[in-house]
Formats: sequence, C-alpha cells, structure tokens
Amino acid sequence: MAAQRKIPICLVGLGRIGRLHLNHLLEMPDRVVVLAVCDARAQAVDEVRASPGLKGYTDFQAMLDQEKPEALVIATSAQSHSRLIEEAASRQIHIFCEKPLALSLPEARQAARAVSQSFFQIGFQRRFDRAYRDAYQKIRAGVIGEPITFKATARDAWEPDLEFARVEVSGGLLLDMAIHDFDLARWLMGTEVTGVSTAGSSLLYSELPAVGDVDSAVVNLTFQSGAIGNVEAGRTGTFGYDIRTEVVGTQGALFVGHVENSSLVIADSQGFHRSASANYRERFLEAYKTELREFVDCVLQDRKPDCSVEEGIKSLEIALAARESLENKKPVSV
Amino acid sequence: MAAQRKIPICLVGLGRIGRLHLNHLLEMPDRVVVLAVCDARAQAVDEVRASPGLKGYTDFQAMLDQEKPEALVIATSAQSHSRLIEEAASRQIHIFCEKPLALSLPEARQAARAVSQSFFQIGFQRRFDRAYRDAYQKIRAGVIGEPITFKATARDAWEPDLEFARVEVSGGLLLDMAIHDFDLARWLMGTEVTGVSTAGSSLLYSELPAVGDVDSAVVNLTFQSGAIGNVEAGRTGTFGYDIRTEVVGTQGALFVGHVENSSLVIADSQGFHRSASANYRERFLEAYKTELREFVDCVLQDRKPDCSVEEGIKSLEIALAARESLENKKPVSV
Amino acid sequence: MAAQRKIPICLVGLGRIGRLHLNHLLEMPDRVVVLAVCDARAQAVDEVRASPGLKGYTDFQAMLDQEKPEALVIATSAQSHSRLIEEAASRQIHIFCEKPLALSLPEARQAARAVSQSFFQIGFQRRFDRAYRDAYQKIRAGVIGEPITFKATARDAWEPDLEFARVEVSGGLLLDMAIHDFDLARWLMGTEVTGVSTAGSSLLYSELPAVGDVDSAVVNLTFQSGAIGNVEAGRTGTFGYDIRTEVVGTQGALFVGHVENSSLVIADSQGFHRSASANYRERFLEAYKTELREFVDCVLQDRKPDCSVEEGIKSLEIALAARESLENKKPVSV
Amino acid sequence: MAAQRKIPICLVGLGRIGRLHLNHLLEMPDRVVVLAVCDARAQAVDEVRASPGLKGYTDFQAMLDQEKPEALVIATSAQSHSRLIEEAASRQIHIFCEKPLALSLPEARQAARAVSQSFFQIGFQRRFDRAYRDAYQKIRAGVIGEPITFKATARDAWEPDLEFARVEVSGGLLLDMAIHDFDLARWLMGTEVTGVSTAGSSLLYSELPAVGDVDSAVVNLTFQSGAIGNVEAGRTGTFGYDIRTEVVGTQGALFVGHVENSSLVIADSQGFHRSASANYRERFLEAYKTELREFVDCVLQDRKPDCSVEEGIKSLEIALAARESLENKKPVSV
Repeated sequence: MAAQRKIPICLVGLGRIGRLHLNHLLEMPDRVVVLAVCDARAQAVDEVRASPGLKGYTDFQAMLDQEKPEALVIATSAQSHSRLIEEAASRQIHIFCEKPLALSLPEARQAARAVSQSFFQIGFQRRFDRAYRDAYQKIRAGVIGEPITFKATARDAWEPDLEFARVEVSGGLLLDMAIHDFDLARWLMGTEVTGVSTAGSSLLYSELPAVGDVDSAVVNLTFQSGAIGNVEAGRTGTFGYDIRTEVVGTQGALFVGHVENSSLVIADSQGFHRSASANYRERFLEAYKTELREFVDCVLQDRKPDCSVEEGIKSLEIALAARESLENKKPVSV
Repeated sequence: MAAQRKIPICLVGLGRIGRLHLNHLLEMPDRVVVLAVCDARAQAVDEVRASPGLKGYTDFQAMLDQEKPEALVIATSAQSHSRLIEEAASRQIHIFCEKPLALSLPEARQAARAVSQSFFQIGFQRRFDRAYRDAYQKIRAGVIGEPITFKATARDAWEPDLEFARVEVSGGLLLDMAIHDFDLARWLMGTEVTGVSTAGSSLLYSELPAVGDVDSAVVNLTFQSGAIGNVEAGRTGTFGYDIRTEVVGTQGALFVGHVENSSLVIADSQGFHRSASANYRERFLEAYKTELREFVDCVLQDRKPDCSVEEGIKSLEIALAARESLENKKPVSV
Repeated sequence: MAAQRKIPICLVGLGRIGRLHLNHLLEMPDRVVVLAVCDARAQAVDEVRASPGLKGYTDFQAMLDQEKPEALVIATSAQSHSRLIEEAASRQIHIFCEKPLALSLPEARQAARAVSQSFFQIGFQRRFDRAYRDAYQKIRAGVIGEPITFKATARDAWEPDLEFARVEVSGGLLLDMAIHDFDLARWLMGTEVTGVSTAGSSLLYSELPAVGDVDSAVVNLTFQSGAIGNVEAGRTGTFGYDIRTEVVGTQGALFVGHVENSSLVIADSQGFHRSASANYRERFLEAYKTELREFVDCVLQDRKPDCSVEEGIKSLEIALAARESLENKKPVSV
Repeated sequence: MAAQRKIPICLVGLGRIGRLHLNHLLEMPDRVVVLAVCDARAQAVDEVRASPGLKGYTDFQAMLDQEKPEALVIATSAQSHSRLIEEAASRQIHIFCEKPLALSLPEARQAARAVSQSFFQIGFQRRFDRAYRDAYQKIRAGVIGEPITFKATARDAWEPDLEFARVEVSGGLLLDMAIHDFDLARWLMGTEVTGVSTAGSSLLYSELPAVGDVDSAVVNLTFQSGAIGNVEAGRTGTFGYDIRTEVVGTQGALFVGHVENSSLVIADSQGFHRSASANYRERFLEAYKTELREFVDCVLQDRKPDCSVEEGIKSLEIALAARESLENKKPVSV
C-alpha cells in the first residue's frame, strides 16, 4: 500500500471548537499537513501556533493568498460563516464549516451557491456519534416501525458570554444550539419539519432578553409525515451537559443518551452520587474526530460529504422559524 | 391503643382501576368495612363480589339507599363522575373520585359546590408515589433552586378501546391521561399554568380522529412565574408504560423515572435486554394504595384531603385548554 | 364462585420480620383468620395485638393449646426454629418458618423428620421476587446456555445488634444472611455446591469477633457441574441495602438488581445524586407477600410448597461449610 | 513557548495492542518521531509500516542497532518481555512494556535490575482511565472511609486462540488478564495482598485445560490491612467485554463501570435492548492514549513513571500465587 497523499489545510477561528478541530487535524499526520491558523485575535494565534510549529495569521485573506490551502476548516462565530465560505469557495477551496451555515436564509443560499464547485461539509457532529449513527441505521432498518414522535433534550452547561449570545453574533439559542436538534429531527425522522411553535424563558440568565435571546425554549414540531415532536433547548445545564434524544415509532422506541454518564458511582449515607456529565467536547470527542476525518477522506477520495450545505440550509430554516414563533407567540410554518 | 373504628364504604365502577381500588380497600380490614360494589354491568358485579363476600348492585342509587355508606370510591368512566359525585354528596357521603373530575368546567364547578360539606379526594395517585413525593419535597426545600423548566413524558401501553377513547366518554388523551402530567406540572413547579400550545398526531391508531381523539400530543406550557415546559402524552407505549418527569431549576435538576425499570438484565451476543416496563397498575401500585389509605385516614381523622376538588378543577382547566389548542392549532390562555 | 374457606393461623416472633409477616397475613382476610400472636417479650405482644384486635401470648405452647391453629408462621431468632417446628409439627400444624431452618445439621434433620406429615415452607423469599423468578425461568429455558459462573453481592445496612449477631443465636453472617445467596446459587445454577473456601474480615464492626462473627466474607464456590462462583456477604451496606446476583452462562449472562434503585435522580453542580437503596423490607416487599400467600394457598389447595424443608437443609449445609472454612482457613467440601 | 523536542521511538510487537499503541504514537507528532516497528512475522510488519511511511524490521536487535531509539514500546507476547527489556535496557533505552512484566519472578526481578538506569513504565492502563483515576483519588481523600472489601469482575469477550492461551506464552488467564485486577486491588485498597485462594472452571472452552489454562476463575484475596476481596476473571464475556470494580469502605462504597455501556437503548414489544459492550480497545481507548503520553512526557521531562517496574513485580506475585492456588486447590500466601 502506497503512502497516502496529504491535504494542505488551513483553519480559521481559534475559540474552543476551533482548537479542538486543530488538535484533530494534527492527529492525522498521515492525511493532512496543517499549514496555518488564523484568528482576528493575535493572542489566540500566538497561543496555539508555537507548539506544533504552525504559521499564524490575523488576516484571513492573507492566509489564503499565502498558503493556498486545498481545504479549510471554519470555526469562527456564526455571523462570519457565509462571508468566509464565499471567499474560500471563490478560490475553489474545499470547506468544512461549523454550524450554523449563516444567520439568515439569503446569506445561507448565497453561500450554498458559492460552494457548488467545492466539497463542503457542515459541522453537525452528532451525525457521526456512534449512538446517534446506530439509532439512524436502526430506524432506517425499520426496527421501531414508522417514526411518530421526536423528542430532544439539550441543556448546555453554559458559561455566560453576552457578547456571543447576541442574536446578531451567534444567532442565539435556537440557531446556535437547538439547530443540532432540528438537524437530528429531520435526519432521524426521515421527513421534513413543516411547522413549529415555541415558548421561551429567561429565569436563569435574566440579562439575555436585553441581547435578544432567552435561556431556554420548548419548540413543538410538526412533520410532513404527520408525526409530531418537541425540542427543549437551554443554557440550563447548571448540573452538566445534558443531551438526550428519543424517537418513538409504531413498533417501538429509541433512546440516545442518558441522564448520568459517569462510570464512577460513589455511595455514602446520603445515597448514590455520580460526577457531572462530560461537556460537549468530551461527550462528542469521537464524533468531532470522525466528522473531520470524513471531510478529509471525502477530499482525498473525491466524493461529496453527506452532511452537505443543503442540510445546513434546511436546519437553519427550522431554527429561524422557531425564533420567529418565539417572538410572535404563534405557530409558524416552515 | 384502642381498636380503631371502621368506615362503612362502597365502591362504584368495576373496571380495571375500580377492581384495583377494591383490592386495596379489602387490604385495610382494620380501617374499612366494604359494604357493597356497583357497576351497571351485572357480569362485572358478579365477577368480583362473590369471593370477598360483598353485596353487589347494578343501580347506584339503590346501593346508596340500602347501604348508607359513610364513604364512596368512584371509579367509573369520566362522563359520569360529576353526576355520581352530586348524588353521593347530597347524602353527605365522603368521596374519593378518579380523575378527571368532570368533562367540562361547568360540571366540575357544580361537583365542587356539591362536595363542600364532605371530604373529597381526587385520584392523582402520582402525588403519593415515593419518587414524586420526594421530588416535590426536594423542590420545596430549594434543592434545585427556582424551577424553570418542566418536562413530562407519558406513554401509555394502550389496548385500543374506541368506546372509551370517545371524547364524550373519557375526555380523550388530554383529559384522561395528560391530566396527570398537568397536575404534576402545577404541583411540582409551584406555579399555575397560564398558556398552552398543542400539536397532535394519529399515525399509530388512525381510527382515533373519527372518535375525536389523537394518539399522541405535545403540549408547550407557560407558567405564571415565567417558567416553561412541555408535556408529551401518547398511547404510543407499544414497548411498555413510560412515565418520566423532569424539573430543571436555577441550581440543578430532578429526574423522576427511568427508561428501563426492570431489575433483570439479560445479555447475549445481541447485547443487553430488559423486560418491558411495568404497566400503570404495577408502576404505581404503592401510590394507589397510599392515596386510598390517605383518603380513609382523612375520614377517620376528620381532616380535609390535600388532593382536593380545587386541584381537580385546575388540572382540568389546563387539559381543556390543551384540547382547544389541539383543535384550533393556536396557543390558548388558561 | 363460592367464598373461600379461611385458615386459622398463628404467628410466633414479633421482631421486624415477624411484624412484616403479620401485616401480610392481615391483608389476606379472604384466606386467613389470624387468631393470635406470640412473643416471649410481653411488650412486643402488647404493641402489635391491640390494633387489629388479636389475642396475644408470651407462652408458645399455651397459644397452640388454646388456639389450635391449622397453620403457623415462625419468625423468631434462628436458635429456636427447630424446637418450635417440632412442637407445632407434633400437632399436625402446617408451618412457614423463616430461614435458617436450624443452627446445626442434626437439628435441621430432626425438624425435617418432624414436618413430614405437614406442609412446610422455608422463608427464602427471594425465590418469589419477580426479577429472581424471571431469572430462574430464563435460565431453565436455556436463554444463557449452560450456567458457568455464579456471583452474589449481599451487603446489609446493618444496625449493630451484638446479641443477635452471636453465632449461637442467629448463626452469624453466613447462616443468617449469606444463606439467601447459597440458596440462590443452588436454585439458579441448577446444580449442587460441592466445595467452599471463605475469607472473612471485621474492619467495620471490630466487636464482632468477640461474639464469634465477622462483618464481611467472600466465599468461593465450586459446583457439581464444574461451574464456579463467589458470594460476598457483609454487614457493610453503610450506604444502603445492596443485593445483586449474576449468572454467566455459555451463551450469555443474567444480572439481577442494580447499584442504584431509586427512581429519583437529583443533579446539581456536584453531579448526580440518588437516595439510598430501599432496605430489605422494601426491596423484597412483594416477594414477602407472595411467599406467604403461596404458603397459604398450598394449605388451602392441599399441595406441598416448592420451597421445602430439603431446600432449607441443603442451603444450611453450604452455610455451615462456609463457616468452617472461615474458621479453618481451608477449603471445605460440602 | 518553544517547539518541543521529539523523542525518537521504536515499537516491537504488532498484534492488536501493538497496533493500538502505534496509532497513539502517530497521534503525538509534536512529541515523538516513530522510527520503526518490529515483529517476527514479516507480514504483520508489511501491513502496518507502509501507510505512515515507517521502517520495518523482523529482527529486534537489528532495529535497535540501526535506529538507536531513545525509547521503546514493547507489545509482544508475555514470554518475551523480560528478554526484550534486558536487551533494550542494556542500551540505556527508556521502555514502556505491556503487562505482565514476565512469566516468573526470577525473570521479573532480573528485568527490574536491568532497567534501574532507564525510565520504565508497565502497561496498567486502567490506572489512567478517568473513572478509575477518580476512584483512586476519592479513596485516598477518605470519601468512603477505610477500604474493607475489594471486588472485581473481569469478563473478556475472547476469540479463542489456543497458542496464545498456553501458560508458557501468555501466562494464562491469571497472568494475562486477572493481573489488571490484582494491580487495581493493590492500588485502590492502598495495602498489599497477603493471601489468595482460587477456584477455576473450563465449561465454556473445554480445550483450555490441555494447554494449562482455565476459562474462568474466582480468587479470594486477603490484604495486609485485614481487608478481603474477590476477583472474578474469565474469557466468559460471550455477551461483551465486562469490566467492573467495587471498593467498599467503612463509610461508603465506590463502583466503577456498569453492566450496560451503550448510549443507545432500543425498546420494542420484547422489552429494552442495548448493544453489546465496547471491547477493551474501545472501553480503555483514552486510557491507552493517556498512559503512553504519560510515558513520553516522563522521558521528555526527565522523571520516573509512577507505574513502575516494582508495580509490575508485585502484581505478578499475586497472579503467580493465584495460579498456584488454582493448581493446588489450597490458599497460598503472597
């Protein structure tokens, strides 16, 4: 077996998720050569580039001009996604982009047009988690009959960051976080969402309404097939990161995730205790690795990623409708 | 300690829940004397009365006239509750009545007026379940801070009975079943429900719409305190009876119930297997006993039951609003 | 269906387990008439007899002479079991006796001879627990292939009682407590124990060696079939009552019980918490009821209980061998 | 921060565990340069070396002579460990060696003398597993009081390999597999094992006795502190890899691992189903990575690994005593 060619790759956005993706790229020395990283904050660039011996940029275009990468990982905040996608796609660079695709449908559609000649993957990493992937396959194989109810619980152990929370930066709770669950809803149920009805609350972080957001929301879903569902998403995981999903079918049901995910139980005279749940970087560690490796393999093997720009658009449509329903206090059609 | 006096009691309604209550009355020979049972179906009366040596009636008024009980357990179908309550209450009989209190608010209010001189308890047995009771106490003690999100899953392992399912007999899914969850919502959250928004589906039992019902529903809730919630209720437990409730607070969360409730796990080359969940009569066996004993003790000790007629009215209001929202596809205020 | 005849029954021994059995007898007013209770401690008799209106005795023979019961429940401490069995059996009374049958094999065999004309049941209530019964049936049905390894964990939440702990009163840890696991070993594995090897410890209750006992023990088992096993029994459940059993077979495995048995989970910033396990009277409540009802039904239906005096002897043999191995620090054949 | 120097490293033994270690070395391109791999089987060498562009050897000495590595990972079968350790140590190479250290105490002690001038780490990866490490820290912090009972369950999902099973190749079940549990026993209990008593069985793989092994064993342990314990080890995981450990203390207990470790539950009319457990390479994936990174960091930072050659010797002593007890059917002192 001949040694494999290696993809020259760059990464933009050195927040937590960006650094995670960087580590995973560096663990694939047989498949990629990481050329450079970019972040508008010079300090973030300095922090990460030294140890692995990478080049660092604070100017995105300069990085693309100088490094001429074949592929790019975008991990900046949501408001810049569509612009960076367009710039990279205009150079025929293949793109892996974190969710959400954009903050509005027009931007999302423009980005989609831009990447029509590149390979593009959106960062719905849960689709690469072993339990979710198994669930998907079991449902498609008919193990629970026809899906009739979808139910998601998503509670993030949030460290309040009002800058990030601003709707015009991250898209807010429904675009930034619940979008994972809207994507799962479509993917697992095998049918499109046709309507949403949202209620929201801000009893935990009362400063959120001032920046246009809520700390938790419940979103009723109706599907084209006649099925129904509910997504509860919140920054309410003061006790840990809590992600669970259920699909009820005509002949059974599937449950992904569990309340307590620690392997250590301590018992004392007060009862039984488990440590807090892993955060999202731990819970989905393997999934994050797998999705990035899938993207790299798509480029190496010249095939289109399944988790495409269209998937990004459709989940965004639901998230935007859910946000509209939250504001208008009325059901909204998708 | 002197031997206790025994309450002369009668029971009407010999369906599954009625027979369960009868057994529990018979297990309290130190507290009650069961005089007679009544059901319009002579065969049902014959089946149960012989073994314990009870008298049997098919005529409710005849039973009350002849037996002159001090207390009565009502376990008939919902449409007759308010009428039976009024008849018994007019004789100053103390009453334990299964939920829902009635099928409309005017009937419920009339029943409430009728029982003002008697002790009355409505059958929300989950309030007597150890785990739910502990949850209630922990919440009131501030263990999870202020409640901010309520979430209920309620999937019944239904044996289709279209006669019973008719909205004018049982009230349908939302009055017959989800009312337990609406009651838990009020009780656990410690605040009243102010609005609901419902979506429903009938993909499992497609015959239900013809009798005015659905097989599953998701109901978003808003609370007076600003909290939110969601109740998913369905006849969709083809895999077993599945009742779980979560309350998220500002400082933690509470989870009652778990997906798998069997104590036996079997492992083979296909993985790990547990038998199906217990049905409602098994899951809440102790709770059903405890609620009835509480009613009996209230009568013996001359005190008012906590689970009062007002609780029955308030939960009914939510259920009726949820049904209106299901029909109108709009949020409804309570 | 004709009303059933009712067995006149007495009970001796009003400790915790005796009072539990008494309650269960009183819950079967259709099947038994409880005539009287007996305990050498007059105060214990006074405490329980008044409320249900029973007669009370401090003299066992006087009770049998006066009441002439058809059946008897023995719930005294172990050292008196064989003597009480012989006295009752000489009057042709049917007997339900708590474990262990006796404190020595000669006494046990003499008791067995005495009951040859009566119906006799020994109190191995775990055989009547739903999960254990299901496990037994699955194993017999071949679901896990041939049983090859038996494993028991039994940790009692002990309230130290040095009088009871004395080997000549209760038989000590191995006869009083581990005997349940030795019985399960024989019953579930479907083969007899041929050898044991024990190690013991008293680091928790250092006063136990002075009365001839230890606070915990591990007992290796060998079976006639060639299978092996281990029983860990201890008074070490400072965190709650902890009873779990595993059987590994050639094609799978079975697990009964789980570490955490509460249905309520509380999550906070320290992690996830469940309340302590139920004690034995709660964990096996239904099993205790079921075993007594089975005994009563055997008498009513004129058939021999499965949980016979021979079962009592065989489990006692293992327990005695395990105690000998503990003392001699050598493997002992059974 | 300056870029780190990289350790030139070789690996010998390309079985499953060797390939796993190789992958983990290749994921640390910032810390190590993998020079070459070696295996007596030329085909195994060919299979792995091409893709990452490594050199391959079938002759161990030739590899050391040519490559002059600073560090070496030994992942061959147990019988060669001590010889390879001595050869590498004589060249002052730092060594990471899979367990067991050797197949006899004299060999183990000779290997220990040889590595006195090198950094040496033995492959007890469970000590690097998050749950086990947390358990260790909690016990040392006194959370459960003084440890009084140790209990291990270790069931491997074995693919029968009679060549490997031969006692003179792998050391058999007790040296190859149970040694992990003997190491945990010493480490978690914080006291040395003083005696063992073993029973064994071969009902699943009846061909094992012919090569000197059994398919399962239960080993009673006594500790210097007066504590007791039991290790059940077997090739009996036909249903999956099943590793669980419990430590009971005077004030509580700790439980590591659980029966079912899948995050996906499927429910149908037959009950609830989870997929089989992860195998050892999945269950301990992060632990395997962490232990190797710890070894590399020890070399880079010039400090001795905690998981030292002495730990390797002490656990081997217990395993050898357990094997002697299995053969002699008597307790053996350690």
